[in-house]
Amino acid sequence: MLIVMKTNATAYEIDAVVEAVHAMGLRAHPLAGPTRTAIGITGNTGVIEGRGFENLFGVAEVIRVTKPYKLITLDLRPEKTIVRVGDATIGGNELAIIAGPCAIESREQAFAVAEVVNQSGARFFRGGVCKPRTSPYTFQGLGEKGWTIISEIRKRFGLKVVTEALDDSSVALVEQHCDVIQIGARNMQNFSLLKRAGRSKLPVLLKRGMAATLEEFLLAAEYIMAEGNYNVILCERGIRTFAQHTRSTLDLGVVPAIRRISHLPVIVDPSHSGGVSYMVSPLARAGVAAGADGLMVEVHNQPEAALSDGAQALTLAEYAQLIKELQAIHELTAPSRDAPAQN
Amino acid sequence: MLIVMKTNATAYEIDAVVEAVHAMGLRAHPLAGPTRTAIGITGNTGVIEGRGFENLFGVAEVIRVTKPYKLITLDLRPEKTIVRVGDATIGGNELAIIAGPCAIESREQAFAVAEVVNQSGARFFRGGVCKPRTSPYTFQGLGEKGWTIISEIRKRFGLKVVTEALDDSSVALVEQHCDVIQIGARNMQNFSLLKRAGRSKLPVLLKRGMAATLEEFLLAAEYIMAEGNYNVILCERGIRTFAQHTRSTLDLGVVPAIRRISHLPVIVDPSHSGGVSYMVSPLARAGVAAGADGLMVEVHNQPEAALSDGAQALTLAEYAQLIKELQAIHELTAPSRDAPAQN
Amino acid sequence: MLIVMKTNATAYEIDAVVEAVHAMGLRAHPLAGPTRTAIGITGNTGVIEGRGFENLFGVAEVIRVTKPYKLITLDLRPEKTIVRVGDATIGGNELAIIAGPCAIESREQAFAVAEVVNQSGARFFRGGVCKPRTSPYTFQGLGEKGWTIISEIRKRFGLKVVTEALDDSSVALVEQHCDVIQIGARNMQNFSLLKRAGRSKLPVLLKRGMAATLEEFLLAAEYIMAEGNYNVILCERGIRTFAQHTRSTLDLGVVPAIRRISHLPVIVDPSHSGGVSYMVSPLARAGVAAGADGLMVEVHNQPEAALSDGAQALTLAEYAQLIKELQAIHELTAPSRDAPAQN
Amino acid sequence: MLIVMKTNATAYEIDAVVEAVHAMGLRAHPLAGPTRTAIGITGNTGVIEGRGFENLFGVAEVIRVTKPYKLITLDLRPEKTIVRVGDATIGGNELAIIAGPCAIESREQAFAVAEVVNQSGARFFRGGVCKPRTSPYTFQGLGEKGWTIISEIRKRFGLKVVTEALDDSSVALVEQHCDVIQIGARNMQNFSLLKRAGRSKLPVLLKRGMAATLEEFLLAAEYIMAEGNYNVILCERGIRTFAQHTRSTLDLGVVPAIRRISHLPVIVDPSHSGGVSYMVSPLARAGVAAGADGLMVEVHNQPEAALSDGAQALTLAEYAQLIKELQAIHELTAPSRDAPAQN
Repeated sequence: MLIVMKTNATAYEIDAVVEAVHAMGLRAHPLAGPTRTAIGITGNTGVIEGRGFENLFGVAEVIRVTKPYKLITLDLRPEKTIVRVGDATIGGNELAIIAGPCAIESREQAFAVAEVVNQSGARFFRGGVCKPRTSPYTFQGLGEKGWTIISEIRKRFGLKVVTEALDDSSVALVEQHCDVIQIGARNMQNFSLLKRAGRSKLPVLLKRGMAATLEEFLLAAEYIMAEGNYNVILCERGIRTFAQHTRSTLDLGVVPAIRRISHLPVIVDPSHSGGVSYMVSPLARAGVAAGADGLMVEVHNQPEAALSDGAQALTLAEYAQLIKELQAIHELTAPSRDAPAQN
Repeated sequence: MLIVMKTNATAYEIDAVVEAVHAMGLRAHPLAGPTRTAIGITGNTGVIEGRGFENLFGVAEVIRVTKPYKLITLDLRPEKTIVRVGDATIGGNELAIIAGPCAIESREQAFAVAEVVNQSGARFFRGGVCKPRTSPYTFQGLGEKGWTIISEIRKRFGLKVVTEALDDSSVALVEQHCDVIQIGARNMQNFSLLKRAGRSKLPVLLKRGMAATLEEFLLAAEYIMAEGNYNVILCERGIRTFAQHTRSTLDLGVVPAIRRISHLPVIVDPSHSGGVSYMVSPLARAGVAAGADGLMVEVHNQPEAALSDGAQALTLAEYAQLIKELQAIHELTAPSRDAPAQN
Repeated sequence: MLIVMKTNATAYEIDAVVEAVHAMGLRAHPLAGPTRTAIGITGNTGVIEGRGFENLFGVAEVIRVTKPYKLITLDLRPEKTIVRVGDATIGGNELAIIAGPCAIESREQAFAVAEVVNQSGARFFRGGVCKPRTSPYTFQGLGEKGWTIISEIRKRFGLKVVTEALDDSSVALVEQHCDVIQIGARNMQNFSLLKRAGRSKLPVLLKRGMAATLEEFLLAAEYIMAEGNYNVILCERGIRTFAQHTRSTLDLGVVPAIRRISHLPVIVDPSHSGGVSYMVSPLARAGVAAGADGLMVEVHNQPEAALSDGAQALTLAEYAQLIKELQAIHELTAPSRDAPAQN
Repeated sequence: MLIVMKTNATAYEIDAVVEAVHAMGLRAHPLAGPTRTAIGITGNTGVIEGRGFENLFGVAEVIRVTKPYKLITLDLRPEKTIVRVGDATIGGNELAIIAGPCAIESREQAFAVAEVVNQSGARFFRGGVCKPRTSPYTFQGLGEKGWTIISEIRKRFGLKVVTEALDDSSVALVEQHCDVIQIGARNMQNFSLLKRAGRSKLPVLLKRGMAATLEEFLLAAEYIMAEGNYNVILCERGIRTFAQHTRSTLDLGVVPAIRRISHLPVIVDPSHSGGVSYMVSPLARAGVAAGADGLMVEVHNQPEAALSDGAQALTLAEYAQLIKELQAIHELTAPSRDAPAQN
């Protein structure tokens, strides 16, 4: 159930509704927007009798939810969520660029890449410390030394750091050293991890699972939000299909599809989808043209020597050229991009 | 086997090689490019002894082909093929726009749409006369009357007409009334039809099958070329995957993948992939940003009353707005688009 | 619309209904079953007013059809269709085995295999004369000589011959030399070919397309039936998925799914699905256990020397062993197999 | 690297090799078979120099591994692994039946089902206590009370209990109350969970992920084995494809494919694949016919009232009938089933 407050509802009226929800043993999720606040209700096992709420002061409307999700919807919040990470944003007017190597391999490598990422104007740095690898026998990340390096990059360049967490203990490390918790495609339905991230203060970047339907993807975000963390960024990174010319098939139709249902920002990862570097720039341009709020892209100072996913990393020069094109497409498509939900 | 001629080889020398090939009971496919001519050889059942050709005048190199295709490759023709349809082109500098209704339903409808397509600056008109429909009980096209209407549009507006052929008899009708033969996704491996189109003088627009791998797609084009018709345009229109939020999953990675292997132009059909109109513009922009040479897009004067695929047709106003954005993206990405094969 | 006749309706009453349908410019498809006859009506573009029919003599019920198919349904014919090919049957009590080489390569090869197929008790022989091959440069079948060989096998052994047709001219050749027209996976939605097969007197074995949904598969059968040919056998041969350990993923769930909707018999092709011989026997056993009415299986006297798909052909010894197991499973599962439609 | 010991190698010689491996800072995994012991080596980051081992007493052969997996292979252990759970086995001669409700809902429900499961001769009981659900708002399992109920069933009937674990804390609860740890499809690449299960003394039943390739599936098992737990049972439960008539497409080709590579037992889950009860029996029969070592099947005393996945649960009567058929098919196919690896 959603309770939509009047546009002129006071903070006092909103609190009163929240308390009434709590008094029923349920959880209230007030999301404030530019024009009005709406309150999502979770925790009920059956149908809630909504009549009573309609009589409370400041309540404009009580909406029964028939879809499996509540908090991610435009019904709850008609305006797009802008995730703020310090002074940087994802989902606002600027195109969010999250760039960096697949894995932190050494201080030298990480700093060389961060230098170029910073110069390009990107605000976010990516770099895995614990890597979830298909085989138990391949490079699993630097571990402790990696956390130190990533902390130093954060201080030195002021870049916001996005790093993957695999379990409770690594969520705690990300909270200590980074700015955004990444949940990888393989863990999109690791519900224990989603709940833990939902109890964090940090924003969560949630990658779509390789076989996830749109509904499953949105429900994974709902798991995080249901715990009280409303700063979720969705990331399309390709799905598994019969096609073998890319590592995964980038499903850009999901960008407008999400926009029609949800207020959450969506970014695109062309590197894991393409799987080879010559694919990355065309797919990155396509992602921005399709209306993505940002991009996550792998860059390496020496792709041929990378310990993880080197084939798909851009060189520093390719990356710098790409960023210029992306900014231009982003500006060009701004008017259409912000409209589609009305169609 | 491919025989690459020297850049200064004379027409006489080229003819001599072609004759030598014919004398062996094989077929020669000379493809002239800006810098040199190469000659593809087909018709052999075993390996050909290539030594002899190296001694002929004007021959630069004899290349044994280990891949399953010969004529579609950049080895045979390093420059992109520009398909010329009267004074319009596909694969050259201009972005080719093929627009129109899914099916020709009436003179009134077809002319209303053609009027706007023409004003938008597009050079190609699409419109089905025989429709391949999943059910035998749904609208199968206007038949004879449709051919008349489409001929009139062609004369009145000077638009080049692209229409689907389903079998030998409809290929003949397309040859009589239209400018480009379309082969639909369901017929991509209808080898009888491919061979018939390969014997036509008209260019062929070949749509990718819903489950076609890149190799199968390219080999379908090879079937057409092996019969002597070298004007083939490839069209990505989405593949079948588990995802249900679009009708098919548009696989834009296939655009750079084709560019790395083949000289043939590639266009994208966002309408059949998206399946609903709010998807079409984002996917169309993405297609151009990924490097497509053109777009095939459905427009209708009254989408809500369309007899076939109305849900995915743009209104005339949406279409006009889209075309402007596409042209801008096309110009913006021109430098990168023409480079990828070198990566 | 379906018109269900009373169980004691006379031939005269049935004819009268058929004529009434024709008088409306529509087509009547009377399908007689053990207990009653039902008449499917096709050819209408809008909704038919069914009231009038209810008053005709012998009419029990008029059913409006809301699903996209009519003639393939259990509503029209609650009993399973038994396709009779001379004295052999598909869909009845016996397990139909269709065995033979992928392609007819020589008289010697074809006779060696036919000998063993015949000894095994199988009633059907398969063998391609025109082969639809992915590449234009691979073996395309023996052509004319092939038709002669296959005619001889038919006479010599009394085996019923199943051969693929690719277009109008090859349908005519199959009609002249064989017993069952096969339509391959790549042509499942070649609607011209389906209609041509629908006008043939021979039964049609229709293979599921690699990306065909259940509904599309059934509608392809409906295309054939709508032309008046009610002897259609459906064949599951694997679908295209991300999995690479088999050539196609055999989708055995389609067997009970078809059984719940349609009266048409279903067989399974484990050879094209498995793609390697060690897969064929396990998948064949699974197909029979899932309730298939028969199997289509590739056998070769020298698999390692086969010109087409040799890797997936069983040796004559493997084949003989397999047939025994299949018969045993078929008997064992008979009681459950015939029941599922009631669930 | 694998070290194969001579058939007459002594325990002393084996220990000496293990110690030599440890002395290099690596981990030794000795797997004893009926005829010989082989020792898998993990923990190396580069290539190991194997010459030295060849000189140790009792060593027959040193094999360099080029595939991404080592411990799951037939190279390490040519005989099938028989997982022993008390006096019951999976992978041996008997067909292992794991039956029960999707979720434990109440003492009454669980006991009613367990009663029938026990009578049917099945040795294993399944029943979820913590359920991983797509939506945060659907029934998530009974929690604490569930563990008590399942403990009681285990004592009362002597059935071996298989229950899913989602994270470290639930692994500990499964270890305390059950016999086999189940890792669900959504967690197949939750590497933290795999490692934790690898350190358990209980056998692990690993379900294939919905988009997992054969190699990824086997490598997930390898993660568990690399931690020292060699009792892994693989479970095929359907993959995600475009087909919508089943919940997932059961990929039975994976059964013979695994058999050719690995010594681990494989079972099939027809309930989660089929998704509706009329599919379960045909798919279960097919699974056994394809050579599976066992089946995991959902049964419920009142499927229509089930809190989770009721549509796919068999009634107690359907279940009892099915088990008889499965035993018969299992016996029938025994000779072929145990042979395929030699093909």
